[in-house]
Amino acid sequence: MSEAVQTLEGWYALHDFRSIDWQSWKASPPELREQAMEELEQFLRQCAQAGEAKTGSTAFYSIVGQKADIVFMHLRETLDELNELEANFQKTAFADFTIPAYSYVSVVELSSYMAKPGTNPMEDPEIVARLKPQLPQSRHICFYPMNKKRDGQDNWYMEPMERRREMMRNHGLIGRSYAGRVKQIITGSVGFDDWEWGVTLFSDDPLVFKKLVYEMRFDEASARYGEFGGFYVGNLLDKPKLDRLFTV
Amino acid sequence: MSEAVQTLEGWYALHDFRSIDWQSWKASPPELREQAMEELEQFLRQCAQAGEAKTGSTAFYSIVGQKADIVFMHLRETLDELNELEANFQKTAFADFTIPAYSYVSVVELSSYMAKPGTNPMEDPEIVARLKPQLPQSRHICFYPMNKKRDGQDNWYMEPMERRREMMRNHGLIGRSYAGRVKQIITGSVGFDDWEWGVTLFSDDPLVFKKLVYEMRFDEASARYGEFGGFYVGNLLDKPKLDRLFTV
Amino acid sequence: MSEAVQTLEGWYALHDFRSIDWQSWKASPPELREQAMEELEQFLRQCAQAGEAKTGSTAFYSIVGQKADIVFMHLRETLDELNELEANFQKTAFADFTIPAYSYVSVVELSSYMAKPGTNPMEDPEIVARLKPQLPQSRHICFYPMNKKRDGQDNWYMEPMERRREMMRNHGLIGRSYAGRVKQIITGSVGFDDWEWGVTLFSDDPLVFKKLVYEMRFDEASARYGEFGGFYVGNLLDKPKLDRLFTV
Amino acid sequence: MSEAVQTLEGWYALHDFRSIDWQSWKASPPELREQAMEELEQFLRQCAQAGEAKTGSTAFYSIVGQKADIVFMHLRETLDELNELEANFQKTAFADFTIPAYSYVSVVELSSYMAKPGTNPMEDPEIVARLKPQLPQSRHICFYPMNKKRDGQDNWYMEPMERRREMMRNHGLIGRSYAGRVKQIITGSVGFDDWEWGVTLFSDDPLVFKKLVYEMRFDEASARYGEFGGFYVGNLLDKPKLDRLFTV
Amino acid sequence: MSEAVQTLEGWYALHDFRSIDWQSWKASPPELREQAMEELEQFLRQCAQAGEAKTGSTAFYSIVGQKADIVFMHLRETLDELNELEANFQKTAFADFTIPAYSYVSVVELSSYMAKPGTNPMEDPEIVARLKPQLPQSRHICFYPMNKKRDGQDNWYMEPMERRREMMRNHGLIGRSYAGRVKQIITGSVGFDDWEWGVTLFSDDPLVFKKLVYEMRFDEASARYGEFGGFYVGNLLDKPKLDRLFTV
Repeated sequence: MSEAVQTLEGWYALHDFRSIDWQSWKASPPELREQAMEELEQFLRQCAQAGEAKTGSTAFYSIVGQKADIVFMHLRETLDELNELEANFQKTAFADFTIPAYSYVSVVELSSYMAKPGTNPMEDPEIVARLKPQLPQSRHICFYPMNKKRDGQDNWYMEPMERRREMMRNHGLIGRSYAGRVKQIITGSVGFDDWEWGVTLFSDDPLVFKKLVYEMRFDEASARYGEFGGFYVGNLLDKPKLDRLFTV
Repeated sequence: MSEAVQTLEGWYALHDFRSIDWQSWKASPPELREQAMEELEQFLRQCAQAGEAKTGSTAFYSIVGQKADIVFMHLRETLDELNELEANFQKTAFADFTIPAYSYVSVVELSSYMAKPGTNPMEDPEIVARLKPQLPQSRHICFYPMNKKRDGQDNWYMEPMERRREMMRNHGLIGRSYAGRVKQIITGSVGFDDWEWGVTLFSDDPLVFKKLVYEMRFDEASARYGEFGGFYVGNLLDKPKLDRLFTV
Repeated sequence: MSEAVQTLEGWYALHDFRSIDWQSWKASPPELREQAMEELEQFLRQCAQAGEAKTGSTAFYSIVGQKADIVFMHLRETLDELNELEANFQKTAFADFTIPAYSYVSVVELSSYMAKPGTNPMEDPEIVARLKPQLPQSRHICFYPMNKKRDGQDNWYMEPMERRREMMRNHGLIGRSYAGRVKQIITGSVGFDDWEWGVTLFSDDPLVFKKLVYEMRFDEASARYGEFGGFYVGNLLDKPKLDRLFTV
Repeated sequence: MSEAVQTLEGWYALHDFRSIDWQSWKASPPELREQAMEELEQFLRQCAQAGEAKTGSTAFYSIVGQKADIVFMHLRETLDELNELEANFQKTAFADFTIPAYSYVSVVELSSYMAKPGTNPMEDPEIVARLKPQLPQSRHICFYPMNKKRDGQDNWYMEPMERRREMMRNHGLIGRSYAGRVKQIITGSVGFDDWEWGVTLFSDDPLVFKKLVYEMRFDEASARYGEFGGFYVGNLLDKPKLDRLFTV
Repeated sequence: MSEAVQTLEGWYALHDFRSIDWQSWKASPPELREQAMEELEQFLRQCAQAGEAKTGSTAFYSIVGQKADIVFMHLRETLDELNELEANFQKTAFADFTIPAYSYVSVVELSSYMAKPGTNPMEDPEIVARLKPQLPQSRHICFYPMNKKRDGQDNWYMEPMERRREMMRNHGLIGRSYAGRVKQIITGSVGFDDWEWGVTLFSDDPLVFKKLVYEMRFDEASARYGEFGGFYVGNLLDKPKLDRLFTV
């Protein structure tokens, strides 16, 4: 029996990917579209209030390609609040013009692979801030879920703690070499969704996503043990872009 | 030929996950929505009566994310009763506002890996209570189906009984360390649905789901032999929450 | 090159799983529902006539869970007759209230693994009866498709005939220990559908399905070589149940 | 680096599987159904003209089970002609009553595993006829796509040419033992569709499909290296059957 | 830890596959169809302007088979521009007659496996031209996504740089032997979409796609390490073909 690493958890996360029903949008009378936009903006303002109150954070991006058109990434203190956010969104007039595309339920997580022995990580304000982060307004987002493989000789969960710690240390070194160019939020989803982790990256340059993920893929932790789900990449939907997107 | 472990079976189980058709719901006249809510509540009262009569039990939760919006978990004495529950639900006005999302057919199961030799488990009232359990009103639910792997060297069903028993004993020790914080119901689905078992967890703290499943994943029984389907997590839908959810 | 086992074939089989469109059903005027039920019953009577004429057999069950609501299992002498049955069903008013859910095309098959050398199995009336069986009216049905694995060291088709014969003999011994409690119909689908075999079980006690399939899973023929598709379980739809199911 | 076998290519192939929208068909006024049938027959006549002009060939069959109701198998000299056939079909009134179910794009292929050294296969009129075949009017059709496996030790493309040639020779011997009872058309789809080959079989007895494919499965070329997609089986749709099928 | 190869990136790419809703198209009044065609042609003209301004390139082809009917392949300088192109298309009247079928997000990529040591590839005008290419007007297109395998002994990312370089050199030699007959554009999608690379081939002879991909499959880089997604093949949609396609 291999030793489980200790994890620290912060805010719960819901990634809510949606497609736009453009045909309905264009066929709707202007006053209905106007009402829909107002209700969307009201929903976004309510989300922003959670950020101001430090009780959560929400990011809103468009997605490139047919997998989805937009994504809300919500961080909140409880699963109940995430459920309420979903219902609140569904009750907006805007929601009637969207189609569910993909979602992911997880919780902000820090593993203690890197922890210094003898310290209490919850006393570290930097760690607490990483568990309850305000999402950045970077120009681009990247999301993908992942597992650690359990396949024959390549079984992460059968490796001794020290081996895993060493591999994660190397992995972390690559990440650190991208410091300042990318913000990474790891969310754990064991027991919550179909993969073990979600990875959300924010950057002003989308090539950084490609360089980072590709470089890590040669690292043993990914090369032998990483299993990856679908990748979603998108652009910040600020107010001018939002207006331009939905003007027909 | 490896020896099959003996199992004890109790009530049959149907997990019935459904999405809400919010667009129809919002577009419906108030009196139709009111009738739909009344018929849902009548359906739930009938389900509650099975609990009072000790002929079954039903749990009702919301689900976080796009996979589903609600789940009914029904336990009943026969597969026929489960089929009747499905039909009764379909005949409610409320059902017209729901879309099938996922379901799982199984039967409450206890394996005798842990049984003391020479005892008749059916004479143990605790075991009988576990085979025909009243579902708790915990604040959160977690469901996932699973298999024991049969892949090359990692073939659970080719392991000798004593090895399997030992691995399940370790597995049980982890579970026991969570006693009081989580209630676990194992349902067997060999011959009934696409995975071999369903696992339903109830807890007032959803982090317990994550901690328990993650810790077990390092245990050989899961690390080498566990295959997992989709995970569903949700919140208790008591009357006030139900009313709030469907008020538009 | 490994020696192929000889097989005997009887009637062609079509398993036709369908879901009910309950919303349409409930919204339809009573006279249309009545006509639909009459045309369904006429279809079932025509199916019954094939049984009386010994030119085929049809079973009709409800299915538990969301995968399907009903299944017709048709046995007939030719693929053309199965195609005609499909078309005849589609032309009923009842069919408009159903949605295709899953189907399986196969042919009743006996393998000669157990054959006594030097005998002609087609002269054995018991074998002929098994190739052209009248389906029982057991209270429950279970269906699943399966393959024999071809994966690295676990490659059924590379095993010598004698090894396969021995494994199938053990497999058959388990089946025989359930004699009287379950009726099993093996249908071959190599060249006809996506798996190599379909297994249809009939029993008055659905736990027998679980016990039988689970016990076999520890048998080398299944443990190492069995690959299983989706499992469907259901209840006999006799006239009173049918009427109750569709009364709204 | 293993040596690629040389292949010869003939006509391009499109298998176009479609389901019938029976509900629309039955609800349509008779004159629309009549027009639809006329346009289907006109489309089939145009297809037949390609056969008469030796510029292609089209087969038309019904399919058993829910995967599809009908299939057009078109052979033509160019991909452009196949695209035009698709568009011509879509423009018929009949097409409005069909739903796309599956399709396959490939090209008639002969491999030179069996070629005699020193000969030019394109001077062999039998080979040319096999590359541009007129499809038979056999009573039954069977289609499935397949790959040669590349998985660990079972990697067809890493085997030396001589090993592959020997395995294909054995494979061909099985095929030849079915001569006269089945016509087999191999189409290559590397670069065109999701599998490497399509196999289309024609026979007056569908059991021949099962016997042939099953016997081959014990052959090393299939047992170790064959990966198979979905199987489709059906019945010739001649004029009387076509009329009967669509009369409601 | 294996060394990651350096890559050079150029324009971002969106492959946008769509199906035609023929039933709606045919049922629409001629003036609406005319408007739709005009808006499509205006969209294509705007795309062509990016080519003239050397700020991007767009190719437009029909697709054979049911997977899709048309594909736009867009190259642009930023992900934002790709998102805008998607929105601009959705706002055309033509888009209402299309259904999303598949899409792929990537960026034109050159790997430095072949780079001469000590040179700066970005000073090579040929390399810069390959990173920001004008798409050819070849008669045929072929697209497929792919991964390098990470499975047990066949793990590309665990191979030392020198081994990978040698395998890619052989791979490149095959490609070079097709020079003049095919144009190949490699786009990297690590971090952007579900596979690691997209491969787009252009040729006047579709058999070249088959010959090239098949010959490469025997090459160790593909035979042991290549994993392939779906293949799409199609024909150039020039103005006369476009008009003919949509004339009903």
